[in-house]
Amino acid sequence: MGHLSDGRWMAAALMLSHRSRGRTAPNPNVGCVLVNDGAVVGRGWTQPGGRPHGEAMALAEAGARARGATCYTTLEPCAHRSHRGPTCSNLLIEAGVARVVIALRDPDPRTDGAGADRLRAAGIDVTTGVLEAEARLAMAGFLTRQAKGRPHVTLKLATSLDGRIALPSGESRWITGPQARAHAHLERARHEAILVGRGTWEIDRPRLDVRLAGLEHRAPRRLVLSSTGDLRSPSDIAGLEGVDHLLVEGGAEAAAAFLRAGLVDRLLLYRAPILLGTGKPALGDIGLPDLASAHGRWSLLDARQLGSDRLEVYANS
Amino acid sequence: MGHLSDGRWMAAALMLSHRSRGRTAPNPNVGCVLVNDGAVVGRGWTQPGGRPHGEAMALAEAGARARGATCYTTLEPCAHRSHRGPTCSNLLIEAGVARVVIALRDPDPRTDGAGADRLRAAGIDVTTGVLEAEARLAMAGFLTRQAKGRPHVTLKLATSLDGRIALPSGESRWITGPQARAHAHLERARHEAILVGRGTWEIDRPRLDVRLAGLEHRAPRRLVLSSTGDLRSPSDIAGLEGVDHLLVEGGAEAAAAFLRAGLVDRLLLYRAPILLGTGKPALGDIGLPDLASAHGRWSLLDARQLGSDRLEVYANS
Repeated sequence: MGHLSDGRWMAAALMLSHRSRGRTAPNPNVGCVLVNDGAVVGRGWTQPGGRPHGEAMALAEAGARARGATCYTTLEPCAHRSHRGPTCSNLLIEAGVARVVIALRDPDPRTDGAGADRLRAAGIDVTTGVLEAEARLAMAGFLTRQAKGRPHVTLKLATSLDGRIALPSGESRWITGPQARAHAHLERARHEAILVGRGTWEIDRPRLDVRLAGLEHRAPRRLVLSSTGDLRSPSDIAGLEGVDHLLVEGGAEAAAAFLRAGLVDRLLLYRAPILLGTGKPALGDIGLPDLASAHGRWSLLDARQLGSDRLEVYANS
Repeated sequence: MGHLSDGRWMAAALMLSHRSRGRTAPNPNVGCVLVNDGAVVGRGWTQPGGRPHGEAMALAEAGARARGATCYTTLEPCAHRSHRGPTCSNLLIEAGVARVVIALRDPDPRTDGAGADRLRAAGIDVTTGVLEAEARLAMAGFLTRQAKGRPHVTLKLATSLDGRIALPSGESRWITGPQARAHAHLERARHEAILVGRGTWEIDRPRLDVRLAGLEHRAPRRLVLSSTGDLRSPSDIAGLEGVDHLLVEGGAEAAAAFLRAGLVDRLLLYRAPILLGTGKPALGDIGLPDLASAHGRWSLLDARQLGSDRLEVYANS
């Protein structure tokens, strides 16, 4: 049975899970908070490379204070043995945790309910489904890999109000302001790989790094889409090992190729309050047969102001 | 001296002024509220064609209850005689109004401070400058005509997220949903004239009417921009008699011509949550020499959700 404060603590666990988005593949980026007597006694998130798991990190921090505590975790604790580390459901039982609140059942067939069952069998009170929708967004990379066998794909566009990404001369620095560009760099840090099309790679020579103080080491792997590049077609992303989050940064033809293939899960749209008129369009041909088929595909997830620019985040629905 | 409730009552007067936006040229669309003992005793707004003035209408409604009342008016009451009706400053004095609160001084050289002076000379307490910025927006048509000798120009764009207004086939019905289209029709009712380019006129044959129940009679005058049309160039708008608010509805070349000429004061941007890829761009060449000169021109005035679409209103700054 749920408690009134469950949503609040799970929201804290979700914040922690975002810390390792893009750094844990093929493992999920789990966030975990241990609460005892109304106070946080341990916090954890899956560490780079996938180990330790979030629950293990939180338990290590809590030590003896884990006894009688409630564990909030964004994903069902694992039930399967691994040579890489301990099994989280066992760790929670051994630590004497009284209650476990889970956002999302683990779709990995080696757990898939077995973790929660083991906890219940040990006399632990288990609640599931708290902030499940938010957890699906927070761990979208792992979940997309599990469900579709490919990375979760985000397409980034930075445009003028009239949908242009450069002047006819090619001048594109800058459309958006410093806050929007900093946000885009933070997004890079949360993806295992960035992809650009061949034209963008050869003409713009983008650095595709993370220019944020303290996060420089989090520059993702760089990929080029071309007949001779890392990927020949968008569908080749299924074979990318260690990449559960892919950020497509353009240009217009690469972006269109992913949209045409139905391989964009999330759209990051940075828009500057400027008009450009003629210039480079944001997208090439995305293969729409008619206008009706354009509708109903995108739903607004989030929107915020970044300086004078606006960021809108859409999910493919 | 101002009173705490002045802003609230002036906001009510501004709402009334919006009722006759686009119907009073060459007169200003003034809104007026008479308040006595904390209650509204009269409401008025400039009537179609420009007479009666808002103050006259509010005084007629209030009758004897105007004695000792406060008059909230969006524009300084007129001081000049006209064969078309009485002078509002005199009417207010004769009615025994105790106080007059004014948003904006009348730039018409026949009044321009003389209305307020006459009220003060008659012993009436006069406060000015309440919600002045809002009043500038509400009466932008009159003010632009006074200051620049031309109508106030609004450019309407209805685009996809990537700035397209039609598929390559020309299919454009519909990009936006019913709420956004209804809002666009309400905007038509608030302009004396709508302009489209020759291509739009000949190919789309737009009806350019107001399809809103009860407002069908408010369809504005229709103008075509072309070498043989009503206007040969955007600068010809100065000569449009009886038009203080002009709505430019496209297409891309007509819109660009107005932007190139620096003749767009307000931008209405309706955006649907769809991507179109290739297709017709919103704008033609607006004559930008470089990217830096695109910045700093537009400031966000208002934004709202209309069904699944978003409306943003920008002012040329």
